[in-house]
Amino acid sequence: MKVVIIGAVAGGASAAARARRLDESAEIVLIERGADPSFANCGMPYYIGGEIESREKLIVTSAGMLHDRYRLDVRVRQEALRIDRQAKTVRVRRLENGAEYDESYDKLILSPGAAPIRPELPGIDHPKVYTLRNLDDADLLHAATMGAKRAVIVGGGFIGVEMAENLVRRGVETTLIERNDQILTPWDAEMVAPAAAALRSAGVTLKLGAEAEAFEPQDDGGVTVALKSGEQLSADFVVMCIGVRPENALAKAAGLAIGERGGIRVDETMRTDDPDIYAVGDAVETFDSVTGKPTQIPLAGPANRQGRIAADNCFGRESRYRGTQGTAIVGACGVTAAMTGLSEKACRRLGVAFEKVYVHPASNAGYYPGAEGMTLKLVFDPENGRVLGAQGVGGKGVDKRIDVLAMALQAGMTVYDLEESELCYAPQYGSAKDPVNMLGFVAAGLLRGDHPVEHAHRLLDCELGDSFVLDVRSPGEHAAGAVPGATNINIDELRERLGELPKDRRIVAYCKVGMRGYLATRLLRQHGFDAVNLSGGFTKYERFVAARAEATPKMAPSGR
Amino acid sequence: MKVVIIGAVAGGASAAARARRLDESAEIVLIERGADPSFANCGMPYYIGGEIESREKLIVTSAGMLHDRYRLDVRVRQEALRIDRQAKTVRVRRLENGAEYDESYDKLILSPGAAPIRPELPGIDHPKVYTLRNLDDADLLHAATMGAKRAVIVGGGFIGVEMAENLVRRGVETTLIERNDQILTPWDAEMVAPAAAALRSAGVTLKLGAEAEAFEPQDDGGVTVALKSGEQLSADFVVMCIGVRPENALAKAAGLAIGERGGIRVDETMRTDDPDIYAVGDAVETFDSVTGKPTQIPLAGPANRQGRIAADNCFGRESRYRGTQGTAIVGACGVTAAMTGLSEKACRRLGVAFEKVYVHPASNAGYYPGAEGMTLKLVFDPENGRVLGAQGVGGKGVDKRIDVLAMALQAGMTVYDLEESELCYAPQYGSAKDPVNMLGFVAAGLLRGDHPVEHAHRLLDCELGDSFVLDVRSPGEHAAGAVPGATNINIDELRERLGELPKDRRIVAYCKVGMRGYLATRLLRQHGFDAVNLSGGFTKYERFVAARAEATPKMAPSGR
Repeated sequence: MKVVIIGAVAGGASAAARARRLDESAEIVLIERGADPSFANCGMPYYIGGEIESREKLIVTSAGMLHDRYRLDVRVRQEALRIDRQAKTVRVRRLENGAEYDESYDKLILSPGAAPIRPELPGIDHPKVYTLRNLDDADLLHAATMGAKRAVIVGGGFIGVEMAENLVRRGVETTLIERNDQILTPWDAEMVAPAAAALRSAGVTLKLGAEAEAFEPQDDGGVTVALKSGEQLSADFVVMCIGVRPENALAKAAGLAIGERGGIRVDETMRTDDPDIYAVGDAVETFDSVTGKPTQIPLAGPANRQGRIAADNCFGRESRYRGTQGTAIVGACGVTAAMTGLSEKACRRLGVAFEKVYVHPASNAGYYPGAEGMTLKLVFDPENGRVLGAQGVGGKGVDKRIDVLAMALQAGMTVYDLEESELCYAPQYGSAKDPVNMLGFVAAGLLRGDHPVEHAHRLLDCELGDSFVLDVRSPGEHAAGAVPGATNINIDELRERLGELPKDRRIVAYCKVGMRGYLATRLLRQHGFDAVNLSGGFTKYERFVAARAEATPKMAPSGR
Repeated sequence: MKVVIIGAVAGGASAAARARRLDESAEIVLIERGADPSFANCGMPYYIGGEIESREKLIVTSAGMLHDRYRLDVRVRQEALRIDRQAKTVRVRRLENGAEYDESYDKLILSPGAAPIRPELPGIDHPKVYTLRNLDDADLLHAATMGAKRAVIVGGGFIGVEMAENLVRRGVETTLIERNDQILTPWDAEMVAPAAAALRSAGVTLKLGAEAEAFEPQDDGGVTVALKSGEQLSADFVVMCIGVRPENALAKAAGLAIGERGGIRVDETMRTDDPDIYAVGDAVETFDSVTGKPTQIPLAGPANRQGRIAADNCFGRESRYRGTQGTAIVGACGVTAAMTGLSEKACRRLGVAFEKVYVHPASNAGYYPGAEGMTLKLVFDPENGRVLGAQGVGGKGVDKRIDVLAMALQAGMTVYDLEESELCYAPQYGSAKDPVNMLGFVAAGLLRGDHPVEHAHRLLDCELGDSFVLDVRSPGEHAAGAVPGATNINIDELRERLGELPKDRRIVAYCKVGMRGYLATRLLRQHGFDAVNLSGGFTKYERFVAARAEATPKMAPSGR
């Protein structure tokens, strides 16, 4: 058996190692266009920023080691030019000297990855307009930051945000421009407002709703970024981080099926429509494990799993990919944003019925030093309570809760299961009622009809008609900032002051994070009032106000 | 409806708050023997040690606040003396003046907790022999640590370990004695060896297999602890942490059913055998959610959930407790030990068939600064791969992985599901193949027969007959320490040196943590050798050697 693998990072490397473990006698050839197989591409921004000091740390493994340990035939700086599916050969070019040869295969695994998008804008070919894909790029950017004063990052996705954190760490005055009205667009806007705030606090100039339209050379060797708004940003260099495009040219030319958004089509065994050709990683169109719909998610975890599965199937092992649930995490200057499954906006886009709740718990017991706050959002099926997705933002412990919720999603668990989850508790690590339990309580209570909720964006959009807005916090909290027009009655006095409330209007009760509002809702409903709780309280309301302030006026609010 | 709740901490407080949310008109009376309702008992060791500076932080809520917000009638410093089930009254004594009265109830919820065990040893009533249950105890211990030079802690469970950490933090020379041959007995011995080592590194004198038999007063007001071994330990004070006993006197006197180990018997609704009396928290016998067998687990999380469920059922809501899975965590001088579900020894004790694997991953990508090591152990069903339990020990990220595995256990997931779990990955937070995935790969590979494993304790117990022990690490690693009698062939040279290996003997291959050993096993089996991988590698082997060295000679090894 001879397996040829094109692309030696993440998915390709995983496939190759798995192939060897499955078959000592197989011939395994890895063709890699770059200089290094299996480098740590997720670490590159941190090498550029100096958090990872040594470049060598990014080299996960060498071609020599892959040969010694796995007897892999690794050919770096070689490029696959075309596939002859009839002859079952790949045409390969040695990049050093341009020489070409044909390599035959029994099974072919494509792991070409995805290329950073470089839009066809005037001046895009300026040498100081960088992208970040491989170690060569990282070297260029590492050098560019030395002595640089100002940089512009175009695109506020994962890489854009990580680059912004790392450029300010290097002392580079950094402007991040993002076309949308929020950074990190897989998340819902209100959930990433704290990440945006953290970038700003760290010194990043963040411009939302801003789009580059041209790059002009400066006399000093720098580049001026012209925005559609007419603004001009002067920079020593620019990093384009507006996303990636699957490297499908080889597959396309070979006549393999390609998805609508450019990903190579594969089935659950990672096989393309050619029975001897598999494809894995950022280049493929896979499917969303929640909705079953096609998706493209360029992340390392899924790529590794897919590589393993493709190798299994090459060697006749039954092994199926279960889809991608979109678990992702990013650090932004001390704030962590993490998510799994469907966001609210994904539900809307796909027409999936959902309900949502927010909680604002602490990472661990509030009485133990060092507890940090977080916001969690749970999106769930309004009929049966099944978890559809979760998002978190805040300090320590966000990654833990989203991982726990990722398991709940994978297992098809419901909000009722989250109520009963038994998680680690000691005061340094969590709370006797963990944030995940709290999500369960709030969501299950909502489904049981115990405490209907209302959402801040509906208050902001004036969609709540003549509702009576009731602030049940203390007068001091109320005085420090409140929803306009709200009446303040401290929860502790509410039972004595029921006479001040209207019986013929809906009452939207709120407190700081939702707990007292929940109690007020329970109390008022039992006294015959039509009361609902403002989900996530004033904290969430302020978050929405902030997200709206970020949004450019030209964009319509995304209200429900 | 009138609900009387006896005991206002954790379970009782949760029941009371839930009861009010369910019924505004109910009369809710909380009888609490101590001075404070709902204090943070899990925080007390850290207050004594000074990590929590202010005593006020331990007061979760006051009686006044519980009245104002929840209209609870909280009666502190009052003790329930007996229950008249016919009359449906409780006899209560005011501790200040001894006055007694009867309080009637419609529903009664017992949340009396569990009392620290004070064994009947000579001198146990010495005033400097403390236990730790409530804030009065914490005050005494807090005062005792001031100016104290030496302390003895009896018992190496959760509280004993936490007290040890906190006394050395206060600069007190601390000896911890534990009757068993390991601390933290819910864990398997080899899994808590690093926690014991951390205590010792921090200055704790740890004596395993040591039992106190008497306490003698010293002239200076201190106390001498006489051990069964004849050793005498001099101390300014002693803390007894040998466990707790359910407070069942009230229930017993009322004729309610009591379990074999003293816990009040309840059904899934938390109801005792009296239809109007419920019981929750540390005082009850509940059931293990994995085995379905009776168990007593005095932890705050389950107590809170049970309180909520008891209140639900008092008010006619269908709500059932799903059992306790034994998720627990403890910090020990920088090392975290966490677990969920069944340990290996619990499986043996209960006769549950199991298989087990170990991995030694890092908390996050090794190339990112600050990654910390951990050991994870997974116990699973050898037939269908269902997760039965997990244990972790090490630095940061242990709590996260055990929480993730607690969800897997709750959901009935298998090792095959763990292979496919999609968890948060960025280099600061995890690895593209998360430690949880690694557990899945190793366990599933074992069940598929890809790489049979052997266990270190069997090597140590010479149960492996004439097996050929093969060290596939580098010569340098081998020279620095190896399994006695092992032959060293670097994995990278193994294919060329197959001739040096026996075809007629079993080969036990090992490396540092199991990864190269796995590869060697795959390689050798394909070449016709009967090879197995030493689970967890030399790291785990050394852990077993250390755990054995700790154990007293009188105890038989717990070998399989």
